[in-house]
Amino acid sequence: MSKLTPQSKDFSKWYNEVVLMADLADYSDVKGCMIIKPYGYALWENIQKALDEKIKQLGVENVYLPLFIPESYFKKEAEHIEGFAPEVAWVTHAGGKKLEERLAIRPTSETIMYHTFAKWISSYRDLPLKVNQWANVVRWEMRTRLFLRTTEFLWQEGHTLHTTKAEADQMVLDALMMYKDFINDYLAIQVLAGQKSAAEKFAGALYTTGVEAIMKDGKALQMGTSHSLGQAFAKTFDVKFLDQDGKEQTPWPTSWGVSTRMIGGLIMAHGDDRGLILPPKIAPIQIVIIPIWKDMAEKSKIEKYINQITKQLTDVEFKIDWDDTKSPGWKFYQWEMKGVPLRVEVGPKDEKEKQVIIVRRDNGEKEKVQFNRIKDKIAKTLDDIQASLLKINSEFLENNTKNYNNYDKYKKDINEKNFFALVHWCGDPKCEIKIKNDTKATIRVDSSKKKKGKCIICGQEANTMVYLAKAY
Amino acid sequence: MSKLTPQSKDFSKWYNEVVLMADLADYSDVKGCMIIKPYGYALWENIQKALDEKIKQLGVENVYLPLFIPESYFKKEAEHIEGFAPEVAWVTHAGGKKLEERLAIRPTSETIMYHTFAKWISSYRDLPLKVNQWANVVRWEMRTRLFLRTTEFLWQEGHTLHTTKAEADQMVLDALMMYKDFINDYLAIQVLAGQKSAAEKFAGALYTTGVEAIMKDGKALQMGTSHSLGQAFAKTFDVKFLDQDGKEQTPWPTSWGVSTRMIGGLIMAHGDDRGLILPPKIAPIQIVIIPIWKDMAEKSKIEKYINQITKQLTDVEFKIDWDDTKSPGWKFYQWEMKGVPLRVEVGPKDEKEKQVIIVRRDNGEKEKVQFNRIKDKIAKTLDDIQASLLKINSEFLENNTKNYNNYDKYKKDINEKNFFALVHWCGDPKCEIKIKNDTKATIRVDSSKKKKGKCIICGQEANTMVYLAKAY
Repeated sequence: MSKLTPQSKDFSKWYNEVVLMADLADYSDVKGCMIIKPYGYALWENIQKALDEKIKQLGVENVYLPLFIPESYFKKEAEHIEGFAPEVAWVTHAGGKKLEERLAIRPTSETIMYHTFAKWISSYRDLPLKVNQWANVVRWEMRTRLFLRTTEFLWQEGHTLHTTKAEADQMVLDALMMYKDFINDYLAIQVLAGQKSAAEKFAGALYTTGVEAIMKDGKALQMGTSHSLGQAFAKTFDVKFLDQDGKEQTPWPTSWGVSTRMIGGLIMAHGDDRGLILPPKIAPIQIVIIPIWKDMAEKSKIEKYINQITKQLTDVEFKIDWDDTKSPGWKFYQWEMKGVPLRVEVGPKDEKEKQVIIVRRDNGEKEKVQFNRIKDKIAKTLDDIQASLLKINSEFLENNTKNYNNYDKYKKDINEKNFFALVHWCGDPKCEIKIKNDTKATIRVDSSKKKKGKCIICGQEANTMVYLAKAY
Repeated sequence: MSKLTPQSKDFSKWYNEVVLMADLADYSDVKGCMIIKPYGYALWENIQKALDEKIKQLGVENVYLPLFIPESYFKKEAEHIEGFAPEVAWVTHAGGKKLEERLAIRPTSETIMYHTFAKWISSYRDLPLKVNQWANVVRWEMRTRLFLRTTEFLWQEGHTLHTTKAEADQMVLDALMMYKDFINDYLAIQVLAGQKSAAEKFAGALYTTGVEAIMKDGKALQMGTSHSLGQAFAKTFDVKFLDQDGKEQTPWPTSWGVSTRMIGGLIMAHGDDRGLILPPKIAPIQIVIIPIWKDMAEKSKIEKYINQITKQLTDVEFKIDWDDTKSPGWKFYQWEMKGVPLRVEVGPKDEKEKQVIIVRRDNGEKEKVQFNRIKDKIAKTLDDIQASLLKINSEFLENNTKNYNNYDKYKKDINEKNFFALVHWCGDPKCEIKIKNDTKATIRVDSSKKKKGKCIICGQEANTMVYLAKAY
């Protein structure tokens, strides 16, 4: 078996190896597109299931709109096309003929959505309109990495329309908080939620909010975004409604999304030098049972004993690894690589003494558990692992977030290692660009701590504090 | 409100109107692509959920492969490219540049799947390999119809590889029977399952099997297909394995799929002149409760009463229509159009006498139900509706399937109306073409009744009986 590169040696190499060795995904021969393998797709299915439920709780309904966007729609919103045009893939020929109009493969669906909404909406009674779609999108990327940045990726995109700006603002926040809750509760990752700078906003949006997580190398990863689109898209696509007084008004749209990129974040937030560590609530396999036997007589006894054990495991996803071509040691290694939260070892001695050995993936703790306590102990341990992973990631974020008011000091530190910095910023894009050019760090989101101070760059008065970090 | 065209007047027009009026889907401005609206997508989600479970029970795991297929892969399998080339959409430009090699938008994923499998498979221990993907595919169609034939559609495509032909044949059958069971149990539609003629098989397959249903106009609709691919694809893409004796062998692949087309079948198999009729097990809304009130005092009493009623409805998907801008009559009309299986009417008299009125969508039967019997009665009625829809469709198929041994008689009859005919066929493609040219009917599937007889066309000896029908 090939050995995993340690994180401390080369985090980026570690990441690529883990994705392949844990059997999550593979490269395809199609430039920048990935193949999501069964174990990786099962993770995505678990994410979809939990998040789809939360999306529906916000009163949002799922729809499906075309993959293709006619070039003329796509070009209608100037800022939008400017932002996305360099990444678009174009269909020019189909059905054996050259098309009269090129079709963009959707990089995001705002333009086709609003074209459709214009037909669906006529009165205030049709609002709010709240839809979501689970779909593939394509953005032609130069440098790609499995899950983190791929030419084609899977995502959900929520699109809503409201009668007032205040209602749209609330929706932007509700979607963002839904992401935060989901990422906390299921992925066991802490996030900073806030508004992005104008330079980092979605092409065509009024403002963009996002949730940012810290990876184990101290870099930031954007886990999801939620945008207030202002009225530009709605006006461009002629979406109007008659209000209660019969006056024509323009609605206020929002859009928000998360993608398979989230899986990249999950890997880098928890993984260690032995591979993946998956939070139990999202793990495709929560428990792996490793039977250990020397001869057939032992195997047969253990089989019977494991049958009794698994009768207790009604609420958990478990797998028994009976493969007789692999040693227990190899199996330990393999299932640790795949990040299964809990290992249950059952050998001849355990069978005799009516016990099992459980081993936690997150901290390696080993414990003997008596037969009649297995069910409770496993449930409790899985809960513990889930909570512990979030706690460790939260503490890591806290310990790696530092206040700075001296730019030279910050520059020196960030050139030595990766971390999050909380600084005052005057709001001037020039200061933002200087930070990026000097340090490669960018403004990730603003902080809710809005106390007055002086901009770390220009020293002018600043009413905003922002988080800086190098990011994926 | 606009009125639905009766089925007897123009079945095709009825279909298009129902799709729009029941709010299932809408036309898009993108040629041949449809917009699946929330109610239609909820149907698809229910289909996905039930079918995905059955697929996983067959030991199949979900994956996701790229949307794009390089032209060179696509062209490798000669018969395959010949079949699909006229329908392919091509990406020629991306990321602001002309691509070196054109990329096909997948019309189906065999070529990219086998290219990938070649890397995944080396030993008999890697087999059987069973994967499935839920995805969008694109086939450029000249004449499109919502759900039935669209340029882009959603589907699942299962792909498996086996060590022997016998095992692959069994898998083809297992997938076909899974479809039959699902269509019977959930969609309440009867199907004929059998093998397709060589002319109707999947481009590149050894043989194709399918399930065919009868629509209310007597035409056939293919609801799903399952193919044995022989070894051609595997050989072309160099998929090999070492068997137990260390000898190199070529595996035996299968593929099988169903699509959003199924929803078209669901509409046409059950619908009537008042709109959709949905089987309870697949209906997004199983029960609609219509409160009826004259004044606020009545409304308030009914609200309290309905709260007591809905406490009983823990296992059903229900909706209460409180819209005070619409009359009860309009609501009856609207929810009948949408095919909700059961309507529950609650008026002042019902509140006083602690009862409700239930009305079945399928047969219009109206019944008074006492409060303490509501839960049981509703559960039983939904079961009855589910069973009754299947029974009616099965009888319709039986009553519209006739044996023929005289071709002139058959020709005369089929030119007058649509039905299924069971006839002897010698197997000669010339006889098959003659039937199609003379009658527009095609061989749908063969029959398991393989008694000897004489071909209805040429009079030669025939060992096969086949079902003929005009088809969508």
